[in-house]
Amino acid sequence: MGFKGILKEIVVESGGLGGVIMGYDGIAIEEYLREAAGLDVQTLTIEYASVLKEIKRTVGVLKTGELEEVSIITEKCCIIVRGVSEDFFAALVLPADGNFGKARFLLKRSAPAFRESLQ
Amino acid sequence: MGFKGILKEIVVESGGLGGVIMGYDGIAIEEYLREAAGLDVQTLTIEYASVLKEIKRTVGVLKTGELEEVSIITEKCCIIVRGVSEDFFAALVLPADGNFGKARFLLKRSAPAFRESLQ
Repeated sequence: MGFKGILKEIVVESGGLGGVIMGYDGIAIEEYLREAAGLDVQTLTIEYASVLKEIKRTVGVLKTGELEEVSIITEKCCIIVRGVSEDFFAALVLPADGNFGKARFLLKRSAPAFRESLQ
Repeated sequence: MGFKGILKEIVVESGGLGGVIMGYDGIAIEEYLREAAGLDVQTLTIEYASVLKEIKRTVGVLKTGELEEVSIITEKCCIIVRGVSEDFFAALVLPADGNFGKARFLLKRSAPAFRESLQ
């Protein structure tokens, strides 16, 4: 169903604010943002992209295998990121009371579909 | 029971490899490392400290409240970090098959005790 369909499904099912497929350079391929998210999901993911690049570099130095998932929880929101290829990741932004466990599960389950759509 | 006692309890109960209380400058106050962890927990946490500093800075820019938790999962291990004060965080390193949910819960539950011991 393509990137947007998968993103929409994950966002709706997890009670998320938005989802995005983005390069580590901060450029989005596709996104699905819920109306009235109250948070600037786009700015959020762009800002975090450079942090993720740094995490990816550190993981490379430490030689503990490929980066699979990163989650960053703050008082107001939570971002869950899953690496889908060498250059791209899928990110989901949740409100503080979102279903963290379900969001992680859905993102993990969708990774192969994202990977396929990237080829 | 002090830092070391709390760290040991969390590491043992979650099946972790090691736990540490560390400053964002990468200097550890206390640590508990399981014997034969097979991973250099110390190097791991020091390398991630600079990444965490960067995450903390980004969270400050985004104004989504205080940083509460960060987790980074790679093929071979998982690190869960919880901010305990402006300058310090508690980090737990788990093997890939460790109990992620329990470790998150235990670290969250122990945050007030860490905070108290820091004063």
